[in-house]
Amino acid sequence: MNILSISGSLRSESLNTRLLKSLKASAVHPISVSIETLHGIPLYDGDLEESSGVPDAVVALREQIKQTDGLILAMPEYNGGMPGVLKNALDWLTRPPEEMGPTFFNRPLALCGATPGGLGTALAQAGSLVVFRQLKVDLFP
Amino acid sequence: MNILSISGSLRSESLNTRLLKSLKASAVHPISVSIETLHGIPLYDGDLEESSGVPDAVVALREQIKQTDGLILAMPEYNGGMPGVLKNALDWLTRPPEEMGPTFFNRPLALCGATPGGLGTALAQAGSLVVFRQLKVDLFP
Repeated sequence: MNILSISGSLRSESLNTRLLKSLKASAVHPISVSIETLHGIPLYDGDLEESSGVPDAVVALREQIKQTDGLILAMPEYNGGMPGVLKNALDWLTRPPEEMGPTFFNRPLALCGATPGGLGTALAQAGSLVVFRQLKVDLFP
Repeated sequence: MNILSISGSLRSESLNTRLLKSLKASAVHPISVSIETLHGIPLYDGDLEESSGVPDAVVALREQIKQTDGLILAMPEYNGGMPGVLKNALDWLTRPPEEMGPTFFNRPLALCGATPGGLGTALAQAGSLVVFRQLKVDLFP
């Protein structure tokens, strides 16, 4: 079982990326965990999409998502919500619209987050549920 | 009374930017409306912030926000939420943390959105309320 984990932070020393590294290190056969970050995905711009199509970094990440048995997203919480960086990646990953289904529908997804604060990015995770409902993922409780 | 309006879309023919242009054109003395877009604001990256500080485009927009009598945000809805592009701008605008108060606390804010769909970006606006509560803006009903 291959699990793809994605960090919602671009910072090299990100607590969330480190959380995923720890998860990867502790995975035991037959479960393996790979880690991706969102570097290289530009800001969503409909003009860019029209002129150049979906960026290569998005296409590459989408192919990985389509092949995974399950997805784990680790998100910091900024201003009580999901990072714009992560939401922006989701906005690209669902373009064009016909890619939304094969990428997300019924795909097992778990959310997690690391923060020095006491609530463990709970507001960001809870606030993201409306979005993941739209994506029709199979959200792990 | 000077109102600053910001479009949450980067697309040149964005319905949301056009909504703000219409608002600007219909404003009557003593109310004036200016329009800003989020072009030039990079993806939030803690490493970039540490090495280079807050980007010029963010500082410039923040100065405009601090001087406005009220803020209007026009947002498209992507995947049932606020665009990553807009959330990303908010993530920068609240860095460093001591800038959050002077930029947002008690500042009058109204939300709007344009879409070809039937719900007028209602999910995105509703989902953003947790974030705007964190920013302690004076949200217009």
